[in-house]
Amino acid sequence: MKLNERGLLVIISGPSGVGKGTIRKALFEIPDNNFCYSVSMTTRKPREGEIDGQDYFFVSREEFERRIKINGFLEYAEFVGEYYGTPLDYIDRKMSEGKEVIVEIEVQGAQQVQERLPEAVFIFIVPPSRKALIERLIHRGTDSQEKIDKRIAKAESEYPIAYKYDYIVVNDEVHNAADRIYAIIRAEHAKTERSIHKYYKLMEGKE
Amino acid sequence: MKLNERGLLVIISGPSGVGKGTIRKALFEIPDNNFCYSVSMTTRKPREGEIDGQDYFFVSREEFERRIKINGFLEYAEFVGEYYGTPLDYIDRKMSEGKEVIVEIEVQGAQQVQERLPEAVFIFIVPPSRKALIERLIHRGTDSQEKIDKRIAKAESEYPIAYKYDYIVVNDEVHNAADRIYAIIRAEHAKTERSIHKYYKLMEGKE
Repeated sequence: MKLNERGLLVIISGPSGVGKGTIRKALFEIPDNNFCYSVSMTTRKPREGEIDGQDYFFVSREEFERRIKINGFLEYAEFVGEYYGTPLDYIDRKMSEGKEVIVEIEVQGAQQVQERLPEAVFIFIVPPSRKALIERLIHRGTDSQEKIDKRIAKAESEYPIAYKYDYIVVNDEVHNAADRIYAIIRAEHAKTERSIHKYYKLMEGKE
Repeated sequence: MKLNERGLLVIISGPSGVGKGTIRKALFEIPDNNFCYSVSMTTRKPREGEIDGQDYFFVSREEFERRIKINGFLEYAEFVGEYYGTPLDYIDRKMSEGKEVIVEIEVQGAQQVQERLPEAVFIFIVPPSRKALIERLIHRGTDSQEKIDKRIAKAESEYPIAYKYDYIVVNDEVHNAADRIYAIIRAEHAKTERSIHKYYKLMEGKE
């Protein structure tokens, strides 16, 4: 029995190349989970086979900018002339339905979220060692030395930001990391500030 | 991989009759756990079969009072002329060995611990409803109505203190409650304040 019935917003971030995407995938494979993805909104045209409301919410530039003005995004950015953002109303609806909304996001985006919604759960994924991170960045593809150097420099600039997060989870093995995130979600629901209101109601015999 | 290698001190408390002892037992049955009990210290004489350092640390009144003076107890109390207390040095040694020290304790004792060691993890066990708690207190034995009324009054005075704890866990079913406590322990290890020091060391390539 959970005293806090509202779902959580769980931000999974960390330096480039740490394996955030793989961990998110493993998280969704946990049996009987009540996780959901957040669906992004964009002004770019749908590609063949993409479904509105599932892959993205496809909107006009006017609609996107209207939502920016009313603070309708958890975070947003513009890439090559198109907007991409995480709409707040969708997240809020899913949380009200008791779903844990899992957002995997770059370090910069996560900082925007911290300003908008500090009550979200911020998890920073880290490599088991500096060497492991660098090896991962080198082996990621068949890129030029220049590209590899850039990626290493990016990861180097991102790793110190961990202190701004609530939790640090080591990606030593992907299922270990996903299990630990699952434990964090369960623990967060039991936190006193999230559960005391319902508890007092129960003890007053009102529910 | 855990970034925080020191064990945690986990305080399990809650109103009388909520089932703290049963939950603690279920917790120790979780496979591959690294939990340990704290061994209490007392001035009373050992009973037949009791082993020093296992059931209790049996000490003289002088030794106990010496330890009180040097703040050597997590909490202590005097019952019918004998002292009982939780020695800090034992707990500290076990935590250094990476053991999670589980202390199941009454509400009053837990308040002493909060003053001494606020960095411990404080978990308040609650019943699924007011009715469930009262039924449990009534069915506990073959006691007189007067005794039952006293127990209910005690539980009533204890339940509001939940707000002082870090977590509230519902004892709807004992294994659910134990699993949730286990999730809390795993999550607490991942907390940034407990793990960032080791993480920065790893990323500097020093470990």
